[in-house]
Amino acid sequence: MPLPPPAQPGIPLADVDTPALLLDLDAFERNLAAMTEAARGLRLRPHAKCHKCPEVAKRQIAAGAVGVCCQKVSEAEAMVDGGIADVLVSNEVVGRAKLARLAELAKRAHVSVCVDDAANAGEVDDAARAAGVRLDVLIEVDVGAHRCGVEPGEPALRLARVVNEFGNLRFAGMHAYQGAAQHLRSIAERRAAIAEAVDKARRTRDLIEDEGLDCEVVTGAGTGTFLFELGSGVYNELQPGSYVFMDADYGRNQWDGFPRFEQSLFIWTTVMSKPASGRAVVDAGLKAHSVDSGMPLVVGFPGVEYAKASDEHGVLKVAPGAKAPALGEKLRLVPGHCDPTVNLYDWLVCVRGDRVEALWPISARGAFY
Amino acid sequence: MPLPPPAQPGIPLADVDTPALLLDLDAFERNLAAMTEAARGLRLRPHAKCHKCPEVAKRQIAAGAVGVCCQKVSEAEAMVDGGIADVLVSNEVVGRAKLARLAELAKRAHVSVCVDDAANAGEVDDAARAAGVRLDVLIEVDVGAHRCGVEPGEPALRLARVVNEFGNLRFAGMHAYQGAAQHLRSIAERRAAIAEAVDKARRTRDLIEDEGLDCEVVTGAGTGTFLFELGSGVYNELQPGSYVFMDADYGRNQWDGFPRFEQSLFIWTTVMSKPASGRAVVDAGLKAHSVDSGMPLVVGFPGVEYAKASDEHGVLKVAPGAKAPALGEKLRLVPGHCDPTVNLYDWLVCVRGDRVEALWPISARGAFY
Repeated sequence: MPLPPPAQPGIPLADVDTPALLLDLDAFERNLAAMTEAARGLRLRPHAKCHKCPEVAKRQIAAGAVGVCCQKVSEAEAMVDGGIADVLVSNEVVGRAKLARLAELAKRAHVSVCVDDAANAGEVDDAARAAGVRLDVLIEVDVGAHRCGVEPGEPALRLARVVNEFGNLRFAGMHAYQGAAQHLRSIAERRAAIAEAVDKARRTRDLIEDEGLDCEVVTGAGTGTFLFELGSGVYNELQPGSYVFMDADYGRNQWDGFPRFEQSLFIWTTVMSKPASGRAVVDAGLKAHSVDSGMPLVVGFPGVEYAKASDEHGVLKVAPGAKAPALGEKLRLVPGHCDPTVNLYDWLVCVRGDRVEALWPISARGAFY
Repeated sequence: MPLPPPAQPGIPLADVDTPALLLDLDAFERNLAAMTEAARGLRLRPHAKCHKCPEVAKRQIAAGAVGVCCQKVSEAEAMVDGGIADVLVSNEVVGRAKLARLAELAKRAHVSVCVDDAANAGEVDDAARAAGVRLDVLIEVDVGAHRCGVEPGEPALRLARVVNEFGNLRFAGMHAYQGAAQHLRSIAERRAAIAEAVDKARRTRDLIEDEGLDCEVVTGAGTGTFLFELGSGVYNELQPGSYVFMDADYGRNQWDGFPRFEQSLFIWTTVMSKPASGRAVVDAGLKAHSVDSGMPLVVGFPGVEYAKASDEHGVLKVAPGAKAPALGEKLRLVPGHCDPTVNLYDWLVCVRGDRVEALWPISARGAFY
């Protein structure tokens, strides 16, 4: 059922069929190096939900990462199948079927998982016992994102105690990710949000350690804030994902003081219709990129704006006097949001300059269970 | 690389892993019958971009459809591979590689395609000649959507003449789809938009036929407007797609006088976290449904609203006093927009009541080239 790749290694970029997902390897490699440099001294565990590609994960690990984060069991399975030895499922896993798979996976790799509920911790323990494994468990603490996670302080301490008492679980620390802070536009807003998260994480860690439990790992952070967690003295593991690719929405953040990550991920698209002056239509629509964080950006054509997406069409608005791409011309778009865009593709078409160097399967595409 | 199906035929719905895409077969079959009844007398060619599933297409044809529409060559290939004998690519196809595949496909099925540009018509003719086939070509006319399509009237006539003169093309008629009208909320707005489209289509057809060319097919219409094209005396083929599934956005339309199509498509999801009163988090986020037309609706829990989607999470807001689903409970969501949501899944889990009856592969998932 998977479609054939839209290119073969060695061909010119111009011959790659569209829509395709391009990875500019030079920019990607500079992003890897910049993160390794910036995260110096802390454990780096990049989030694989962004790329879903073991080939990317391997290069992150070669650049110093200790392993990856995943968001779902099937995503973790794809990573382990692809050769990754250490995976944190930075999320709750609920239900017997999924937990049985998670526990099985722990026989083939170092697997850890989050809980934010005592009953769920019991369910995880049951699965670990049935599989004959001991699972590393982190408590997820809500440090301000108000999505999942137990409240910091006493509720978190109680949950840590519960986890610690189960015979097939090892209490490994705290997952304290402030996801809502990543796209706050100003540095000041992001710094303030993380200051609050750090305060909650520190207080909770101290409570837990005062109780005699070892809160070995305090993990969190994303591309938009990781420097603040890095300098906190509380977090000792960082989970950024998007830095490898970047996207239009992250591009709208202020980045003062942060490494200058480059856009390495692009949608390769063709102008399929030029029905009127001021308008061109490309073959990449809602099924070729996600618009949840806004429209993609058009590369190389100042005054040309991606104005409207329908299922398989993107309408470009050409400002008066601006140079429009020709009918049949191929061009690059910067996706609005990298994670759900990558999830639409089976292949990363890796280019070096104007030539295809490799095709990497996005093995965890669609791996949401 | 495709993931294993999230269910097997015969198991109870309660045991289907999440997220999964459910098709309620009873509602689906009633939708098929209602459209057959409503479209009586006109050729029905449902749009397969909505379902991407040959099993659905076969049932549409068994219910009287003459074939399907597709939006991309690879989508058409998946339909022909799945046993569908008549496919209109209701879109422009640009570039030698894609056109070569389209012409090859015409050796295995009746294939027609749209053009809105004379140079592109020449490119289609080249591909047909190279493959040794004659391709049916429709001119796409912009009847008000302002996406692709040649202007109605004289420009359309000129393009029809050009198509007619190519030796490997057969001028087959006009594609006149008013996509922008489908989601206008009131019946009056939709009626007015289609009245204008009908006027443009009629004038253009008459011009073409006055020239001695046979404008055999006038095709268009969607779920939101098809009754108006049906009654126009101009259109003789209808292309609705969403009626088989429906979605939250179509649910916001007024439907007076239209058949009462039922919601047959659902996202099956699990509550994975209940961290605070007033909040529950489900395991279906941006990678399990498309939010381009708004958030999904929660079925069966009045006062519970799907408030926010992140990559793999959906945050439900529970109104004070409303009954919230329990941690671990599975529930149904109505997707915001069916087409790009279906494109995220490899399988349709077909249920009859509370039991899985079949699994249908979404063969054209990701088929955007």
